[in-house]
Amino acid sequence: MNSFGNKFRVSIFGESHGGGVGVVLDGIPSGISLSVDDLMPDLSRRKSGGIGTTTRKESDIPTIVSGVFNGYTTGAPMTIMFANENTISNDYRNLVVHPRPSHADWVAQHKYNGFADYRGGGHFSGRITLGLVAAGVVAKKIVNCNITSDILEIGGVSDKSKFAEIIDKTERSCDSIGGVIECVVDGLSVGLGEPFFDSVESVASHLLFSIPAVKGVEFGNGFEASRLKGSENNDMIITSSGETKTNNSGGINGGITNGNPIVVRVAIKPTASIAHPQETLNTESGEVETLVIRGRHDACIAMRAPVVVEAAMAIALAQFV
Amino acid sequence: MNSFGNKFRVSIFGESHGGGVGVVLDGIPSGISLSVDDLMPDLSRRKSGGIGTTTRKESDIPTIVSGVFNGYTTGAPMTIMFANENTISNDYRNLVVHPRPSHADWVAQHKYNGFADYRGGGHFSGRITLGLVAAGVVAKKIVNCNITSDILEIGGVSDKSKFAEIIDKTERSCDSIGGVIECVVDGLSVGLGEPFFDSVESVASHLLFSIPAVKGVEFGNGFEASRLKGSENNDMIITSSGETKTNNSGGINGGITNGNPIVVRVAIKPTASIAHPQETLNTESGEVETLVIRGRHDACIAMRAPVVVEAAMAIALAQFV
Amino acid sequence: MNSFGNKFRVSIFGESHGGGVGVVLDGIPSGISLSVDDLMPDLSRRKSGGIGTTTRKESDIPTIVSGVFNGYTTGAPMTIMFANENTISNDYRNLVVHPRPSHADWVAQHKYNGFADYRGGGHFSGRITLGLVAAGVVAKKIVNCNITSDILEIGGVSDKSKFAEIIDKTERSCDSIGGVIECVVDGLSVGLGEPFFDSVESVASHLLFSIPAVKGVEFGNGFEASRLKGSENNDMIITSSGETKTNNSGGINGGITNGNPIVVRVAIKPTASIAHPQETLNTESGEVETLVIRGRHDACIAMRAPVVVEAAMAIALAQFV
Amino acid sequence: MNSFGNKFRVSIFGESHGGGVGVVLDGIPSGISLSVDDLMPDLSRRKSGGIGTTTRKESDIPTIVSGVFNGYTTGAPMTIMFANENTISNDYRNLVVHPRPSHADWVAQHKYNGFADYRGGGHFSGRITLGLVAAGVVAKKIVNCNITSDILEIGGVSDKSKFAEIIDKTERSCDSIGGVIECVVDGLSVGLGEPFFDSVESVASHLLFSIPAVKGVEFGNGFEASRLKGSENNDMIITSSGETKTNNSGGINGGITNGNPIVVRVAIKPTASIAHPQETLNTESGEVETLVIRGRHDACIAMRAPVVVEAAMAIALAQFV
Repeated sequence: MNSFGNKFRVSIFGESHGGGVGVVLDGIPSGISLSVDDLMPDLSRRKSGGIGTTTRKESDIPTIVSGVFNGYTTGAPMTIMFANENTISNDYRNLVVHPRPSHADWVAQHKYNGFADYRGGGHFSGRITLGLVAAGVVAKKIVNCNITSDILEIGGVSDKSKFAEIIDKTERSCDSIGGVIECVVDGLSVGLGEPFFDSVESVASHLLFSIPAVKGVEFGNGFEASRLKGSENNDMIITSSGETKTNNSGGINGGITNGNPIVVRVAIKPTASIAHPQETLNTESGEVETLVIRGRHDACIAMRAPVVVEAAMAIALAQFV
Repeated sequence: MNSFGNKFRVSIFGESHGGGVGVVLDGIPSGISLSVDDLMPDLSRRKSGGIGTTTRKESDIPTIVSGVFNGYTTGAPMTIMFANENTISNDYRNLVVHPRPSHADWVAQHKYNGFADYRGGGHFSGRITLGLVAAGVVAKKIVNCNITSDILEIGGVSDKSKFAEIIDKTERSCDSIGGVIECVVDGLSVGLGEPFFDSVESVASHLLFSIPAVKGVEFGNGFEASRLKGSENNDMIITSSGETKTNNSGGINGGITNGNPIVVRVAIKPTASIAHPQETLNTESGEVETLVIRGRHDACIAMRAPVVVEAAMAIALAQFV
Repeated sequence: MNSFGNKFRVSIFGESHGGGVGVVLDGIPSGISLSVDDLMPDLSRRKSGGIGTTTRKESDIPTIVSGVFNGYTTGAPMTIMFANENTISNDYRNLVVHPRPSHADWVAQHKYNGFADYRGGGHFSGRITLGLVAAGVVAKKIVNCNITSDILEIGGVSDKSKFAEIIDKTERSCDSIGGVIECVVDGLSVGLGEPFFDSVESVASHLLFSIPAVKGVEFGNGFEASRLKGSENNDMIITSSGETKTNNSGGINGGITNGNPIVVRVAIKPTASIAHPQETLNTESGEVETLVIRGRHDACIAMRAPVVVEAAMAIALAQFV
Repeated sequence: MNSFGNKFRVSIFGESHGGGVGVVLDGIPSGISLSVDDLMPDLSRRKSGGIGTTTRKESDIPTIVSGVFNGYTTGAPMTIMFANENTISNDYRNLVVHPRPSHADWVAQHKYNGFADYRGGGHFSGRITLGLVAAGVVAKKIVNCNITSDILEIGGVSDKSKFAEIIDKTERSCDSIGGVIECVVDGLSVGLGEPFFDSVESVASHLLFSIPAVKGVEFGNGFEASRLKGSENNDMIITSSGETKTNNSGGINGGITNGNPIVVRVAIKPTASIAHPQETLNTESGEVETLVIRGRHDACIAMRAPVVVEAAMAIALAQFV
């Protein structure tokens, strides 16, 4: 199903080259000041144009169809639409027969018995995250805390001064490269989340893993915790408001916020679509053939991911506040 | 909320030292052969008794209260109960005033305004995973594929011959140690999962992060993917059934199973409860004091985690089959 | 929340005089032939223009934004939009201060703290049922059985030859009138629905009572059953396929379809908006004053309701097939 | 599925002659005073023993398994169990081959492919409402308003002095009789419920129709509204707190509480199980044969229904407060 959340519900729809993409948001309190101008900053952060991003340029101007009246949310569902403009669909015809390695092409055709819209990845396109980012803006207003994110690594390198160089080299070799995003949420109250199934980690990871290209999620010191002793890993509580000396727990104990900043890291794989020649199956002939993917793709989708990760975290936290 | 799933629903309940723990399972097809004997092998794998596990011994014999008639599931909800037997509750009185570092004690008292059952961790106890393991047995029968798991690392060491030594040393120093579990699911059909919010990764991680002590989850090559180029990371499709040359995707593309084995790794932090003296807040005086945790705890909870991870994966997959 | 269903999910949005109304449908199987032409017949049945209906004329032409490709459903969410065209919003300014008796005006302003879009009833408008009817068309294709409906009574009179006369007289006296709709679903398989909470009656009534103006729902012989003896009311099973001699149960036993036609009746109250002078509160002065409602309203909304009732039944049944 | 609610969730389980019946409640705020003594009054109102009720006597003493500590709710899920004691299962063997007219026997065997527990109606038994009544007690504490109910009619007769006589006569003729229950909820705040799918009527009717034997539900003047003109049916708002001169709306406009009492009426059909000889199918021979139902049944289940109706209303309203 393409909706998420019981308290703040996000329903996404649309295809990359179809009539548009969008989102319906439900559970928004009335009286929140909201306009297209509020949406633009985060939408701009997601846009292509920077280093390592696709040459497909979209204006990505949202239309607020419902749920806002006289500049304020009404409490009714908010629908936000984005037109598709800059589409070149004949790039994709070849991919029905030659499914891209590590892309959804092959599973989509199987799952939907050949009826999936294959143009630009259809409903599997990263373009669907436009609605997620718009939802994130509204969620941030609901959650009302400080959410920031940062690119921690590109291609395993954490020296930010090297990022441009790595990406440039990758692009010139018709390849792509992955990265790690860290997101920090500060200023949350104590007690958000539920034990077990609706732990903050559970709900947040659910959303984070719905972002295309995410293959790993860790909270606090994450996988590093598995290498430590309890005496090294435990966070000593040092104040009555619950402040801890270290924050290896990443702000969450027993699935519940402890008042310290939430820290989460997300592994983004390299874009599957690369111009570099690759072997793949010809689904008609059954032969393995060489595929050269045309079309316009991001050499490093991680560059556009921070604001999407923030949106996912905001939407997750909006379930609890 | 303490229930999960729309198709196969798991509702857990109980406290570590209360009237018992259990689970209600809904959405089970009728006609599945099921008895207490079917539940025992996985429950035994979860039991304490092995190296690095607590000295609290529980018989953990399940009672099937409903949903089974004449040895077969009826299609009605199945309730499975476990009595609490070996409880020593006065170990825990001290912890209300001295919340254990990196444990749920402090957040539980805040979230529930002092009404939480603190004995043995109450509803936050790892004992609740008994119900999860029982649910996993039923889910495995529904999913009907091959689910295995393995302890990949203890304390950062992957040489299995060293595990006993590391844990023994940890126990003797009144400490605890973390580990990494890998789970592989083989024999699934193509097309399970949904794009975006109900991707297999989303639903599986939701459940995996609800297991106490889990702080990281990665699929396929996970965080390693973030360090690779597309040409290195992409999995070439080589047969008509979708077999890929490598399996860096961990059996999932676009959130949907591609027929190759699902591979997931889970980071387990060291048990928070250690006998080693630690500093923590005295919530009455507001002073930081030294705490020595009595009670019986696992030095390496990762040793008991594999079957719990399998159960989580089976429950996740039972939403899709 | 403005969405319904776990298997076939309907999310409605929009306001009567805002940017449009619409619906997002999720859980649609791929490969169902669908076009705007398929939607038009039921949308036309809902339209105004006939006897007893409003003079607000809307073209009600749907736009299928997503989820259909080359004439077939793709399996991705389908969004259907309707523009608002023929709006005269200044009819409604007066109603913020003078809430209409038995209308949502007063509760809406309270619930949403004065931020609700009051124009044309905003999100409470019967115009939202456009999306429901469109969803019904898709649901009917999924359910694939015979759904018909009929106006059983207008103003308590069951002689159809009198309907036009009653309504005409009502309109001329600036008043409105209620009615009863009966819907019959034939050709369903045995075994749809669940005991208790997801009984067919539960799920269907949930949707039927979400239709504005519905105040009563009964299945089979309904309230009449309360006046009978078991020996009079029980339906004798007379064939191996479960056919019963009578159908007082309305095709449902224990919440589950028994293969006989589902029969449901729905009571529609008279439109609350009448031009007839009425007393109501002036919310500013606190005085009771006389209100004469301008604007264009249906004298007998029951005339437009049959197709909406069918849609609700189809959406309900699409949860089970 | 056998659970209901997103905010206050009720999951029922059990069979009439199996290991017991019970309920898991989730979403209960911590700190509510609760004990078995609180549950007893409503459970007693549901018990058999009065006129028109079965001779099967059960002690119906609840066991609170979890979620209560030191006399107060903890915020964790509350499980309440009831043992089955007074079972005579061989009464039921005959009914597998001779499904009772208007009972769930036939659909249950079809839906669950012959695996359903048929003893005492199994999971379809009215005994499952024990859990509903217990849930209702907790819901009433959450909702904190005045919920009362009354038997309005028995067998179509509204003169209460005649009820005993009608039932007595019915019992002596080995028959059963239906009735109408009215429930009134007073003291609710304005603004509960949502427009459309989660209207108070929708959510309440969903629960009311899950009670076995309910075939009709109407709010306010219900079906009577369909016979009236708007000028007769509309409720004039006469005070700033929203008090209306009449209450034909039954306290709900646009799906949302308006501060006036909620009024709902529920039609209860006569018990399907009657000793009176009836024709039904022999599912083995395919012949229609005469069935005389043994076992112990209620001649007028409506006599036990008021507290169940109250519970359903309380559970529904607990979704909104």
